[in-house]
Amino acid sequence: MSNLDTVLKDLVIANRILAKEEVVDAYGHISIRNPDNPKHFFLARSVAPELVERDDIVELGLDGQPVREEKRALYLERFIHAAIYEARPDIQAVVHAHAEDILPFGIAQATPLRPVIHSGSFIGANVPVWDIADKFGDTNLLVTNMAQGRDLAKCLANNNVALMRGHGFASAARSLIEVVRLSVYLPRNARALMRAKMLGGKIKYLSKGEIDARNKGYSPYSTETWRAWEYWANKAGIGHLLTRPDGRPVHTGKHDHKHDH
Amino acid sequence: MSNLDTVLKDLVIANRILAKEEVVDAYGHISIRNPDNPKHFFLARSVAPELVERDDIVELGLDGQPVREEKRALYLERFIHAAIYEARPDIQAVVHAHAEDILPFGIAQATPLRPVIHSGSFIGANVPVWDIADKFGDTNLLVTNMAQGRDLAKCLANNNVALMRGHGFASAARSLIEVVRLSVYLPRNARALMRAKMLGGKIKYLSKGEIDARNKGYSPYSTETWRAWEYWANKAGIGHLLTRPDGRPVHTGKHDHKHDH
Amino acid sequence: MSNLDTVLKDLVIANRILAKEEVVDAYGHISIRNPDNPKHFFLARSVAPELVERDDIVELGLDGQPVREEKRALYLERFIHAAIYEARPDIQAVVHAHAEDILPFGIAQATPLRPVIHSGSFIGANVPVWDIADKFGDTNLLVTNMAQGRDLAKCLANNNVALMRGHGFASAARSLIEVVRLSVYLPRNARALMRAKMLGGKIKYLSKGEIDARNKGYSPYSTETWRAWEYWANKAGIGHLLTRPDGRPVHTGKHDHKHDH
Amino acid sequence: MSNLDTVLKDLVIANRILAKEEVVDAYGHISIRNPDNPKHFFLARSVAPELVERDDIVELGLDGQPVREEKRALYLERFIHAAIYEARPDIQAVVHAHAEDILPFGIAQATPLRPVIHSGSFIGANVPVWDIADKFGDTNLLVTNMAQGRDLAKCLANNNVALMRGHGFASAARSLIEVVRLSVYLPRNARALMRAKMLGGKIKYLSKGEIDARNKGYSPYSTETWRAWEYWANKAGIGHLLTRPDGRPVHTGKHDHKHDH
Repeated sequence: MSNLDTVLKDLVIANRILAKEEVVDAYGHISIRNPDNPKHFFLARSVAPELVERDDIVELGLDGQPVREEKRALYLERFIHAAIYEARPDIQAVVHAHAEDILPFGIAQATPLRPVIHSGSFIGANVPVWDIADKFGDTNLLVTNMAQGRDLAKCLANNNVALMRGHGFASAARSLIEVVRLSVYLPRNARALMRAKMLGGKIKYLSKGEIDARNKGYSPYSTETWRAWEYWANKAGIGHLLTRPDGRPVHTGKHDHKHDH
Repeated sequence: MSNLDTVLKDLVIANRILAKEEVVDAYGHISIRNPDNPKHFFLARSVAPELVERDDIVELGLDGQPVREEKRALYLERFIHAAIYEARPDIQAVVHAHAEDILPFGIAQATPLRPVIHSGSFIGANVPVWDIADKFGDTNLLVTNMAQGRDLAKCLANNNVALMRGHGFASAARSLIEVVRLSVYLPRNARALMRAKMLGGKIKYLSKGEIDARNKGYSPYSTETWRAWEYWANKAGIGHLLTRPDGRPVHTGKHDHKHDH
Repeated sequence: MSNLDTVLKDLVIANRILAKEEVVDAYGHISIRNPDNPKHFFLARSVAPELVERDDIVELGLDGQPVREEKRALYLERFIHAAIYEARPDIQAVVHAHAEDILPFGIAQATPLRPVIHSGSFIGANVPVWDIADKFGDTNLLVTNMAQGRDLAKCLANNNVALMRGHGFASAARSLIEVVRLSVYLPRNARALMRAKMLGGKIKYLSKGEIDARNKGYSPYSTETWRAWEYWANKAGIGHLLTRPDGRPVHTGKHDHKHDH
Repeated sequence: MSNLDTVLKDLVIANRILAKEEVVDAYGHISIRNPDNPKHFFLARSVAPELVERDDIVELGLDGQPVREEKRALYLERFIHAAIYEARPDIQAVVHAHAEDILPFGIAQATPLRPVIHSGSFIGANVPVWDIADKFGDTNLLVTNMAQGRDLAKCLANNNVALMRGHGFASAARSLIEVVRLSVYLPRNARALMRAKMLGGKIKYLSKGEIDARNKGYSPYSTETWRAWEYWANKAGIGHLLTRPDGRPVHTGKHDHKHDH
């Protein structure tokens, strides 16, 4: 149970980081698969990520429905998460967001969104674009049922990110810390690629080998990954909830000088 | 009378949201038709939206003039509001603003401003551009009388937004919460379209069917619409004035854990 | 003397406004001609505008030198101000700044910077570009003597603004409040024009008649001009120094409800 | 020893300035050669620059390894600093950062990054682009050993800045204050050049003579250079650590009126 406690605290931290880094605003959400039951996942009820507290977190099944009685309103698009968990046993965390900088790539699809900066490697070599209209015709563009969720998951396939035309993106990773990292760097990579296009001339993308080299060695708690997580958590004012995997004291920001790591 | 009290509180909230979201700055304004008298509307006196308080609100007639004696200076461009209320019995709220991101579309009219992102659907399928010079020749570009206001209202026709060349925009909706929402998302949609153009290639706009699907079912208090209103109000520091239509307690931000909706 | 007291307070306010609105940063300055002696002007000593206090203000002659003994370091480029006051008896206030958004127009001169938005009318119909290299060859690009200042003033001629290639701009107006307003709107107009160019197609500039209509009637204290000055002063946290010309109480911002104007 | 005390305080200030000015974020670092031993340099341990305190600073040798026993994690890319100090006896301070605005120039190399604004002169006439793949094939793009560091230093040659393709930049200068200044202005120059390109037409770069004129006379403590350092230090909230070279009191920001310089 103590592991679950950490998982829920990390989910609160993750919500606050995505809000502070402007990946999400009033809308957008992040979930984590239940480490004790792969058929369930945790997602906040319908509230802005910036305001998510522990009590807001709801446990849902792979059909997108809450596993216990739940009176409070849920995110309409929880089916994005459910369908990706269903299709991808390897995935432990999912983000859906509308981050502005990636929108053009879903609208003007002539320019595929690919890594051009080293921190963008986490988005993966291929970022497909999903258009809900292809299968469902005219809709309100929201993924509000499992059929739509599954179609999105099918487009995502084995990739890390799928852009959702005129809407946003869905990202998926092997850990919470990695899905947050990739979601924070996705807009940054998009900005760099857009500006490179504006400069004109040949663009040097990261090679497949470079993307693989950066992805090698599964370690969500490497020093460099932890440093960003800790930095972002403190920046979001939620550093006090941090849990280091090795039990060492946590650095809670510039007012704490007793750090040792 | 209690409904009027809520209406005036909501107008204060709306002013503060538009200021915080940078739709307006020192200039720009928002009004609401008097629910008890369609020949009148409420608009602040001439003060920056960020500073609007209840006492600043003035009641005007459809000729743009105050219905009671009023010594304080009024917005020069109140005729935008008056003329739109006069021409459009369906409209209950109006915004005029200079939001930077929409200005290029009024200046370089070769690219019509149309919805490209789902939250941009609220601007409507068609956004006409009004040029005061067409009928009035050289002016100071401000709408300072009913003749100019009516010409703008005629250009707006049955649409939700009209761009005002070299000036800003006027938006109109069936409720205050909806005109705020569309005015906040209008610049965001403009940015997405501009960036899509910069990427180059074919642009996928929202279809008429998608715009209609998102507009279907008049509900300014749906959970999703309310969530943005509440989120923006709290962000603007005015959450304490919020009134939920169903009487349930209001979430006043991250320091309040007693929310239940 | 009380008029001089107001003049110096206004100069402090103006410095803070330009800093807050990001027209200036560590560098940049604003001056006002001495209303009691046209051969002198007031300019702060060499300190960031954000930090300017009353005691920092120095009185200089039209040769750019202090009129009293002055031990503290002065702005190297005070000669911009001196030369413009010397050449233009109509000018009462001058700004020099490096505001980022105007820099491209001095670097890529194929696109003249002209008013495209109504608030941009104050920059005037023509904005010449001055290149120090034309007359002085290779320099450090700073205007550090009267010869350079006079060459810049000659380029400025009767216009309101001259861009300084690879450096920034110099603006001049009939009053402090007007030079601040034009300097704040200059970058905004530059952004709108740049974005209009990026959209492509024909650009509609303000006509000469529109520029003139907006400039007609010299009134630095019209309600609309005052509203921006007051709004910006409060935003910069310096509202307590405001002086209304008509003696009415000053609105010091959202914490003051006792306003009546 | 008192000089060393100042050196370490300045290094803390420099870290905070680069963070506040958004040249660095969670990643990025700055070092200074030990004035008492040119074979050593000072660099913080692996922590975000925004959080660097005196105790975080570690002394390293020109092999990138700590000179004393050090348990705490070090920056993986400290070899950038070591190799540049090894190759360039004239260099006393080095920065490595990922500042967004320069990234496009390393990705789309058809447009060389050259000074176009006067404050950009400090980046030097030539900014080479280093691509780690040229010599090392597919890597994770990080400079994590001396071989890679030396290859980067070779590309840098006698220049002030080298862009690192898809990664960021490395800058080097004769003093800490100068490397901070050039690193802060590098992104600003990049933005101006990108926008000039977007406007189209011929671009006027700074001439070699202008760059030299601005670089003439080595004086990291000239009034203008000091003014920016002091301004940035205060802006970063670290002004209390400032040391003026002439012993005069330090201006600690807008709450301190006892300044005299």
